Amino acid sequence: MTAATRVPHPYYPLDLVLDNYVPNTNSMKETLTILFSTFGVITVGALVLAHGKRHSTLKGFASQSTFLWFTMCGFIHFFLEGYWGINHANIAADQTVFGQIWKEYSLSDSRYLSNDSFILIMENITAFAWGPLSFYTAWAMYNNKPGRHITQLIVSLGQFYGCVLYYLTTMVEGSPHCDPHPYYYYFYFGFMNIFWMIVPLILLHNSIKTIYRAMKASLAAEAAGTKHKKSK
Amino acid sequence: MTAATRVPHPYYPLDLVLDNYVPNTNSMKETLTILFSTFGVITVGALVLAHGKRHSTLKGFASQSTFLWFTMCGFIHFFLEGYWGINHANIAADQTVFGQIWKEYSLSDSRYLSNDSFILIMENITAFAWGPLSFYTAWAMYNNKPGRHITQLIVSLGQFYGCVLYYLTTMVEGSPHCDPHPYYYYFYFGFMNIFWMIVPLILLHNSIKTIYRAMKASLAAEAAGTKHKKSK
Repeated sequence: MTAATRVPHPYYPLDLVLDNYVPNTNSMKETLTILFSTFGVITVGALVLAHGKRHSTLKGFASQSTFLWFTMCGFIHFFLEGYWGINHANIAADQTVFGQIWKEYSLSDSRYLSNDSFILIMENITAFAWGPLSFYTAWAMYNNKPGRHITQLIVSLGQFYGCVLYYLTTMVEGSPHCDPHPYYYYFYFGFMNIFWMIVPLILLHNSIKTIYRAMKASLAAEAAGTKHKKSK
Repeated sequence: MTAATRVPHPYYPLDLVLDNYVPNTNSMKETLTILFSTFGVITVGALVLAHGKRHSTLKGFASQSTFLWFTMCGFIHFFLEGYWGINHANIAADQTVFGQIWKEYSLSDSRYLSNDSFILIMENITAFAWGPLSFYTAWAMYNNKPGRHITQLIVSLGQFYGCVLYYLTTMVEGSPHCDPHPYYYYFYFGFMNIFWMIVPLILLHNSIKTIYRAMKASLAAEAAGTKHKKSK
């Protein structure tokens, strides 16, 4: 194909070759409505579940919203990002609902259409490691399991590290993969991802504090045990 | 500069442009001798330190070698990788000892000379986050501090995730940045990095087990406290 016969597309950088690209049939509005309605349904479902434990394991606003966070992360990572992980090679031509969501999002970051190797590995780890571990963390919160803060720490660190790499790998190059229009750059690329930097930081802090307290008690108990043994 | 006047270099892919490249003055043997002698000195130093605690906080082979591991990681991350992080833009022309080590290593992965954005961010995080946290973990082991397993978990997960991304981002492309010669591919690229996948996995397992036990005891104590309160 010569430059003149390349398939035209709206993605950045403008000289990116996406010859299997097929434009979305759903409008941006339809795609966003589908996406955010699904988020709405998950939110309601999670909060209904959480409501049943409001006097026991999920007491207070922080616990309720953390439970919602991990349930939402589980769905987004495992299903939305997992779909991308499996079908990444052909997303530019994909007309399914998920495919159209990814083509809409890719306006803010064409690496999702161009088989970028960093996005490929990071998204697969996010989908198939952090996804199930997010569900586990929500389940462990609900049932007050001792593993909860361990996976909360692991998932949060993984999300934070992934997100730092995600932003900076293109930003250090001057964000060539991003449509510079503020809607795409600041809303899709910036705002829609910044949650995975802010919330993980809060949850990391929270888990580190909780684990630190338990480790301190455990060391104190051990020291008391040793002393006790010695004094016998 | 036309293709004919490009500065020739031994790196892969062969058409990589490295016009500021200056060949090492130290031979491969000299560079490796300097590197491994330094590792030797750090090993001896760490083991001398660890020896003093062999009956208390660093009892047994596992503790002694974990202490050595984190001390070594601290030095490698903070100094060797930190040097790269700060001077990455001009490594191809760098004739310092560190510069020559990096040019030798880059035979197995030219992304260290070509300002690859993933390597840039990952190495800076490794150097300036995992580096100091490795030293902290060694210090916390030595002094039996409650934070030890928290940072052990954080550093190990960060190293493991970083290493998975490191290997796979070039391997999914067919390792175009690596000299295919087995010495460079299997010894430098493969063997010299695989430690950061194997050891972190063992240490993650170890920290998760230890923290899990402490969290379980803490939940049991809490439950006993609640029962006690209720029964009054």
